[in-house]
Amino acid sequence: MVSGLEFSAITEAAQRIRSHVHRTPVLTSKAIDGMCGATLFFKCENLQKAGAFKARGACNAVFSLSEEEAGRGVLTHSSGNHAGALAMAAQKRGIKSYIVMPNNAPAVKQAAVEGYGGEIHFCEPNLTARESLTDKIAEQTGATLIHPYNDLRVMAGQGTAALELLEQVQDLDMVLTPVGGGGLLSGTAAVVNRLSTKTKVIGAEPQGADDAFRSFRAGKIIPMEEPNTIADGLLTSLGDLTFEVISKYVHDIVTVSDKAIIAAMRNVWERMKIIIEPSSAVPVAALMDKKLNISGKRIGVVLSGGNVDLNRLPWS
Amino acid sequence: MVSGLEFSAITEAAQRIRSHVHRTPVLTSKAIDGMCGATLFFKCENLQKAGAFKARGACNAVFSLSEEEAGRGVLTHSSGNHAGALAMAAQKRGIKSYIVMPNNAPAVKQAAVEGYGGEIHFCEPNLTARESLTDKIAEQTGATLIHPYNDLRVMAGQGTAALELLEQVQDLDMVLTPVGGGGLLSGTAAVVNRLSTKTKVIGAEPQGADDAFRSFRAGKIIPMEEPNTIADGLLTSLGDLTFEVISKYVHDIVTVSDKAIIAAMRNVWERMKIIIEPSSAVPVAALMDKKLNISGKRIGVVLSGGNVDLNRLPWS
Repeated sequence: MVSGLEFSAITEAAQRIRSHVHRTPVLTSKAIDGMCGATLFFKCENLQKAGAFKARGACNAVFSLSEEEAGRGVLTHSSGNHAGALAMAAQKRGIKSYIVMPNNAPAVKQAAVEGYGGEIHFCEPNLTARESLTDKIAEQTGATLIHPYNDLRVMAGQGTAALELLEQVQDLDMVLTPVGGGGLLSGTAAVVNRLSTKTKVIGAEPQGADDAFRSFRAGKIIPMEEPNTIADGLLTSLGDLTFEVISKYVHDIVTVSDKAIIAAMRNVWERMKIIIEPSSAVPVAALMDKKLNISGKRIGVVLSGGNVDLNRLPWS
Repeated sequence: MVSGLEFSAITEAAQRIRSHVHRTPVLTSKAIDGMCGATLFFKCENLQKAGAFKARGACNAVFSLSEEEAGRGVLTHSSGNHAGALAMAAQKRGIKSYIVMPNNAPAVKQAAVEGYGGEIHFCEPNLTARESLTDKIAEQTGATLIHPYNDLRVMAGQGTAALELLEQVQDLDMVLTPVGGGGLLSGTAAVVNRLSTKTKVIGAEPQGADDAFRSFRAGKIIPMEEPNTIADGLLTSLGDLTFEVISKYVHDIVTVSDKAIIAAMRNVWERMKIIIEPSSAVPVAALMDKKLNISGKRIGVVLSGGNVDLNRLPWS
């Protein structure tokens, strides 16, 4: 086994989660094609259940558990979309979910978890506090930890978006996804490498959280010290499992400025009439900024999520 | 012929415009279903080209013209989505479009028309000025007037959204659309009456522009004197052609407050991650406000458009 993530794990995930997640549509926009000089196909995971691709990995992990494991519940630490997605997946299976969140997590993210019946445990917003509280809950409850990205079940689930995309659109020259912890990018790369060898897979990352960009070039994980970007879903650093797959199957990683991210986000809202969060706009920004040679090409873009606070838009 | 709008005109329109418009997706939302106590199917014309169902009627009208008529261009008066849609349709056919707009029309609507190569002619914002300028341009250019709704070609085109909806979702108990001038509602009603007699068709209207509600009950057109609503796409009054079809095939018309419209609009943005304009939110508001007996029913909702000024959101 050269990579920890098997293609068969992704096709099995697709079967497992089929009745629990949306098969999201692929949308196109002549206006944005015109701006980029290419033909883009947007895989709309912002329209996914719980508003992000994270529903795929969370459902695959939760429905992979034995009855006995499931009975003890699931546990994670996240202040973002994985938290809501895991709570939703647990609710679907009828089991408990414990979510460790920093006490400064946005109210809207807390509400999402609570809406799905998740049990929130607050900690101080630092790594030590988070890990010690997570360990403590695991010990007390026996709940299974479902890491937001560095988990083969989660990575396989995230890869199912690309499986659908390649069924929905043929003959792509390139597929772009955002990269934070690397769950979506690694799952996508494993699928594309197997099903369409001519298609290049590119990760797009904010300049203010460019650990994947630097790690990819260095050939080893270089964690992010103090990430600073509007793309709040991409603050995390790669894990060893995601890094291995990305190193093997991803063709390149490019970075974009926050200014370009906001401009791309607004263009998608205005032209496509869909709500995407800043993280989703990162690959769009890479295409609009001509960071890649894309002229005349057919390009798939995974729009990762649409969870934004409508009272705090980046252009208002 | 009992109604001026023949079903065959709608199926012909579908063929005629197929390569010019999107077959829009139907989306669902468990969260909004829960709020309404029914199962809703949203036909997303906000994701249509030029951001509204108006692309359908405009394309059908423009591509119905003879070569000789087309050569003289098309003409309309509109400050809304029909203006942009007609300019787009004309651009697709490679002909001129003349758009009469009040000089206080939103900058974003002007930009849309210009973006599609339409020629804008400004008039004072009153009926007399609008009609005299429209007549003058018609006389000078010989352009064909394409009325925003009271035109059988336009009504037939708008009906194609319901044709698709009934292919995409079976067994609907009810279909709701917003009603302004009645183009969308009449086209929808003609289709549903023919293809699914058990399905009721309901129009939803803002309380501040309730001429269709009052006309429907009075059995004659009662024009709106001073409409006042946030649903800026629904300020117009029914025409004789749309009123005839609506009287015959629509089961009821309900009204909702602007407050309910804004709340419904925000719920759709937050839960479904799609951008809809206030007019689109009108039928959603009717369902959320329990204006109808919908418990446990399967309901189609046409989301009419998604053109909003992101700098001026109703909740900010």
